[in-house]
Amino acid sequence: MVICDGMGDRPSPEFGNKTPLSYAKKPNLDALANLGAMGLMDPIAPGICPGSDVATLALLGYDPRVYYTGRGALEALGAGVDLNEDDVAFRCNFATIDDSYRVIDRRAGRISEGVSELAESLNKIRLRKVRGLNFRFIPTIQHRGVLIFRGEDLSARVTDIDPHKNGMRVLKSIPLSRSPGARRVATAVNEFVESSIRVLSGHPVNVKRHQRGLPIANIVLPRGAGKLPKLESLEIIGLKGVCVAAVALVRGVSKASGLRLLDVPGATGGPDTNFKAKMKAAIEALHEDNFVLLHFKATDVLGHDRDFLGKVEAIQKIDESMGLVRDMVDAERTLIVVTADHCTPISIGDHSGDPAPLLIHGCGVDPSGAPSFDERNAARGDIGRIRSLDLMPMILDLLGKGRKFESQGYLKNCRGSTM
Amino acid sequence: MVICDGMGDRPSPEFGNKTPLSYAKKPNLDALANLGAMGLMDPIAPGICPGSDVATLALLGYDPRVYYTGRGALEALGAGVDLNEDDVAFRCNFATIDDSYRVIDRRAGRISEGVSELAESLNKIRLRKVRGLNFRFIPTIQHRGVLIFRGEDLSARVTDIDPHKNGMRVLKSIPLSRSPGARRVATAVNEFVESSIRVLSGHPVNVKRHQRGLPIANIVLPRGAGKLPKLESLEIIGLKGVCVAAVALVRGVSKASGLRLLDVPGATGGPDTNFKAKMKAAIEALHEDNFVLLHFKATDVLGHDRDFLGKVEAIQKIDESMGLVRDMVDAERTLIVVTADHCTPISIGDHSGDPAPLLIHGCGVDPSGAPSFDERNAARGDIGRIRSLDLMPMILDLLGKGRKFESQGYLKNCRGSTM
Repeated sequence: MVICDGMGDRPSPEFGNKTPLSYAKKPNLDALANLGAMGLMDPIAPGICPGSDVATLALLGYDPRVYYTGRGALEALGAGVDLNEDDVAFRCNFATIDDSYRVIDRRAGRISEGVSELAESLNKIRLRKVRGLNFRFIPTIQHRGVLIFRGEDLSARVTDIDPHKNGMRVLKSIPLSRSPGARRVATAVNEFVESSIRVLSGHPVNVKRHQRGLPIANIVLPRGAGKLPKLESLEIIGLKGVCVAAVALVRGVSKASGLRLLDVPGATGGPDTNFKAKMKAAIEALHEDNFVLLHFKATDVLGHDRDFLGKVEAIQKIDESMGLVRDMVDAERTLIVVTADHCTPISIGDHSGDPAPLLIHGCGVDPSGAPSFDERNAARGDIGRIRSLDLMPMILDLLGKGRKFESQGYLKNCRGSTM
Repeated sequence: MVICDGMGDRPSPEFGNKTPLSYAKKPNLDALANLGAMGLMDPIAPGICPGSDVATLALLGYDPRVYYTGRGALEALGAGVDLNEDDVAFRCNFATIDDSYRVIDRRAGRISEGVSELAESLNKIRLRKVRGLNFRFIPTIQHRGVLIFRGEDLSARVTDIDPHKNGMRVLKSIPLSRSPGARRVATAVNEFVESSIRVLSGHPVNVKRHQRGLPIANIVLPRGAGKLPKLESLEIIGLKGVCVAAVALVRGVSKASGLRLLDVPGATGGPDTNFKAKMKAAIEALHEDNFVLLHFKATDVLGHDRDFLGKVEAIQKIDESMGLVRDMVDAERTLIVVTADHCTPISIGDHSGDPAPLLIHGCGVDPSGAPSFDERNAARGDIGRIRSLDLMPMILDLLGKGRKFESQGYLKNCRGSTM
């Protein structure tokens, strides 16, 4: 299953009303589309714009309305943190604020140097307002990190500190439920953030940044509190395999669903990733396992950046790497799924509620005869319009691993949008 | 959003298997279809035949399974009545019955002259069986009216008096729940109907009708008991605007959803309406507001009448009025949606469970290149097959007013068929 994050798009008038996907030269994807079937897939439902977290859950067959427990925990899992059931995790950014607590740069100039030193100092903070609660701050990529609170009966039902926009004031976390667990987490995260300002402001790393004219990382902004989601393993439905992804969130969801995480040298989670190395690792994993989730982030990043030609190039690199699939994979015995978790249109610069193009090749799928893989051909494809939550049951069915929907034969592990 | 009530249809063998929509000459709608996208839209779900009340709620993004509280209250709202939370409202017809309480004409010859005199007399009735309860009868259009009961803790869970068919006996209203409020309303409406026979039978208006050989209006037949629905205003999702409609029900739903009601001279709610005047008023409203619901009833009326060529003519008049849109609306900045709340096929003479054709034009929608707007081209359109409840999220998404489906960002006001 190849997930090209945010790949779907809308027509760009500047490029003859083409989308990056219809503009790109991609002989391998087009050949797969010609011999496979296409359709449109709503991440959640028509018009609903998803975050990557709920979109990825749905792609793996987990209904986000049931299984979503906040993004923080998924990021933490993906960053390699082992979470307990009671832990509450936040996603965090190092950020720059002014004296009146207004956010100047939510990413502190995309700081990457010195973050481990900053983290070390943060982990020395002692929280005094709440008893029986520990915390740990772990930097992940660039300005990003996760903050984990450990204690008994904690609740993630608290609001964000991060105001999500430059120019806005830093917020206070507020409990969203009356449970003591929510109140304790809100108090603790507020105290942590206040302390982070004290610890970071005069920190040697920031002194150096200031001298070099770079934005200083003088606060940590937590958001997206979450707890460990309880996902039944994909092994229950007969899928055993690996995840090839650099992005913490996708790694987190994959880990929670029972996939092993593969580390591929050169995988960066950006447009500079080694597409072929990731693809090769994914294909090789199929010698031992029967399922691979391969995730490319570049298409989403360039959609956010509104970089049409950059997105085209990323798609072309994905296509090149797909050449390896045609060489190395036994098409008779392999189901190849290429899709996006959602669309990130160039014209929007953010996720949209458009349906994502879907391509399924192999295992008896009727060849479309269509000339290429793009949004329009997908809209006119034989699969029609489905939802992400429908994909996993379709995959299982094509692989001969489905279960009949009948009284006791249909268990909760046979998921889909009926549920 | 242009709603052509009941516009969708099935092929008519007498007209070369065309539908009124495919038979009509409609250059403006065809041009919009060519430059826009099409699809099919199930009012509720495939094969489910909706009333106009639930269909209109769904089009505005309110799940009827959650928000529907009976048609009577929506009609009353649309007739300009201010309802309290506890009020129970019925839709009513003036009707003709014989001595054995059998309905001879459910519409009393579509009586319109003299209804205000009849209403005046009805409002003098004193109900004696139930204490602490007042009523008001308000005539609306032709033989139609609304009956409102006001009192504490009233319930609308009561059955209809109206047997819904000529030749049947008038029914007694029965409470459908054990609550005292339902029992009181059932008792009161039964007493009102008995009294209406006494008051109307010898009424001067009816004496005159009898002399002229017209059916007399000797009973009021209430049906569709309902309470005020609690709809969150459309302003919460960023839509502020007006409703241009003559039909009380559509006006009622619109008012309940926070739209202002615009009165357009010449708007009749029938085939003789001033299509262009309504369209012009709708377009002008866009100077101040960002959303207009424009509703044409004619297509539905002529579907009920099984009048193929009449329906064709109504569609052609709608098309003519759409010419104003092409002249007066900035297509770059405006999303144009044309659809039906449901189908009213000529061959049926009533609503059906067929999907309605849908056309969306503007705001980055990929041009279909299709030759015309009709059921077949819609079925093959790039939007595929959605549900009415999906339309509002799609509109918000195309307008850049959507919200991401994720932890705290996703509130209940971000509706759609996901819920």
